[in-house]
Amino acid sequence: MKNSTYLLFLFILLVHSQCQPPNPPEVKEKTASENVERPAYTIVIHGGAGSVSPGNTDAAREKMYTDTLNYALNIGEEILKNGGSALDAVEATIVFMENCSLFNSGKGAVFTHDGTNELDASVMNGKDQTAGAVGGVKTIKNPIKAARAVMEKSPHVLLTREGAEEFARDNGLETVDNSYFFTQNNYDYLQKILEKEKKKMQGSLDFTHPDWKYGTVGCAALDKNGNLAAGTSTGGMTNKRWSRIGDSPIIGAGTYADNATCAVSSTGHGEFFIRYAVAYDIAARMMYGEAAFQDAANEVINKKLVEKGGAGGIIGVDKYGNVAMPFNTAGMFRGYAKPDERVVKMFPDAHYGE
Amino acid sequence: MKNSTYLLFLFILLVHSQCQPPNPPEVKEKTASENVERPAYTIVIHGGAGSVSPGNTDAAREKMYTDTLNYALNIGEEILKNGGSALDAVEATIVFMENCSLFNSGKGAVFTHDGTNELDASVMNGKDQTAGAVGGVKTIKNPIKAARAVMEKSPHVLLTREGAEEFARDNGLETVDNSYFFTQNNYDYLQKILEKEKKKMQGSLDFTHPDWKYGTVGCAALDKNGNLAAGTSTGGMTNKRWSRIGDSPIIGAGTYADNATCAVSSTGHGEFFIRYAVAYDIAARMMYGEAAFQDAANEVINKKLVEKGGAGGIIGVDKYGNVAMPFNTAGMFRGYAKPDERVVKMFPDAHYGE
Repeated sequence: MKNSTYLLFLFILLVHSQCQPPNPPEVKEKTASENVERPAYTIVIHGGAGSVSPGNTDAAREKMYTDTLNYALNIGEEILKNGGSALDAVEATIVFMENCSLFNSGKGAVFTHDGTNELDASVMNGKDQTAGAVGGVKTIKNPIKAARAVMEKSPHVLLTREGAEEFARDNGLETVDNSYFFTQNNYDYLQKILEKEKKKMQGSLDFTHPDWKYGTVGCAALDKNGNLAAGTSTGGMTNKRWSRIGDSPIIGAGTYADNATCAVSSTGHGEFFIRYAVAYDIAARMMYGEAAFQDAANEVINKKLVEKGGAGGIIGVDKYGNVAMPFNTAGMFRGYAKPDERVVKMFPDAHYGE
Repeated sequence: MKNSTYLLFLFILLVHSQCQPPNPPEVKEKTASENVERPAYTIVIHGGAGSVSPGNTDAAREKMYTDTLNYALNIGEEILKNGGSALDAVEATIVFMENCSLFNSGKGAVFTHDGTNELDASVMNGKDQTAGAVGGVKTIKNPIKAARAVMEKSPHVLLTREGAEEFARDNGLETVDNSYFFTQNNYDYLQKILEKEKKKMQGSLDFTHPDWKYGTVGCAALDKNGNLAAGTSTGGMTNKRWSRIGDSPIIGAGTYADNATCAVSSTGHGEFFIRYAVAYDIAARMMYGEAAFQDAANEVINKKLVEKGGAGGIIGVDKYGNVAMPFNTAGMFRGYAKPDERVVKMFPDAHYGE
């Protein structure tokens, strides 16, 4: 075994062990179908959209990602099965993904231009359309928990940077030193980009992570009471500067939930998702244009955004439990679970014979 | 003359002198009517929504506000008359309003809980739907200029706090010490609120400025080439905490522009405007529900937001030059100008016999 292969193996083992949940996954695969009756629950997740494809992924890496996505689904499904709320399922699922360094959120957040980690997250409750978000936080272990605290314990929707951190501390959330978010591979990516910038060979936006280009995690859920919720969490873009905030903490762009329509979480080139209010646009097409959820989601991601040059995808669930997971990138880490149905994928649907 | 009346008179004189533009206003008043042909240009502005009413405003104060709104309209109208772009007109008009301490933006920004001034602004170009915004900046004299620089000179849409300030400095924008934003009356308001908070008599959200509760400035314009643009700038809420960001720098909530539909700027209880993506919602009703601009704007402000408890208003113009200025508060500083038409108001339309 070559030294580099050995190191990769060790890295995979390490990441894997960090992402192990208390219960092993029980995976049942079925093809998605349009719901005529609302299922008891539905949960859908993503772990970022980007360049992941069969051509650049080996079997070990594929297993690592699909196992972890299944673990994440298990977390939320367990809550929903036991009658828990969509909001609790979304939060717990995202907390698990934030604690796993495999995704660009929480522990796995990428590095800014200045070598720090600045995290964004948001959550929305479809029941009453309350929402909370944090932007540019450096010391909150689980930004999704902070977003929920902003929603439930402040009169505001969006708090940023030191102010958001003070609020999180005052509300008893776990804080960490910024060094908690250090991961060698993310740090190495930053160094590569900075080197390329020096040589002016390539702009930061063109640099591609081997698995995702637009790393984010997100979850949307429908609970037994018909309540929808959605949440999103990210470390943003490697090499981001000037306290840039993307779409993840922006309600209507990165996250949206309304019991009357759907719950959506976005991943992609955040600037496009903000300018076109992507998450809300899907709900608006349902409300005013009478579009079906999956059609609306496809239209926005695979037509409108493609025409505009905006790369990415969304995952979501409508009030009937219909799931949509469209993306216009090479791949997207995604999956969903219903009482007798589970799907986890990372490559295009065609790869799975669909 | 009583001492307090004398001081008020001096204050009005002082504010008035700060807000004097090079050209005196030429006011022509006409009733708004639906456009069948697109006018050569249209510009519409607001200076915040809130508690202003004939009952709490004397003639001197009314004249000061209406004169200043007319001055502001002159700035943008001059640009549009001479064939300038909607974007240039929006920026210049907002710069004038930012430099005038009469409104809660730029020089007149209110104070945060910590006694500082933190400003937000955004701008969107309807021609290509590019957008830029800054949040929580303390040293940029004209946040609307910084928003435009973010749009045109960065790959990002939203920059915040120190990062946004660094970006503005690097791009040659005028910076000032935070003390530039000190105004005695805004500082006194903060002290009153803090005192009341101590006594737990009243929450900060219930405190009402004598003229506006939701101070913001905004402008939307249509130029001779059929291009739309919109921008918004604010100091946020008096006594805001935790680096709170409202709807003003959020594209789709506080500002939206698309040549295919309309250009909109919001003012109001920002958290509601974010949760309901107010500015984009109006455009979405036009695109997917075939609503007329004024109907869509009225529906969102006077029905949806009223039902949800969200106070405020919007101003905007559609691609045909139709103007909408609905609000659900006691009053809103507002006005618009077209080649042969000008309206400036602060009280409900009924006050003017409409």
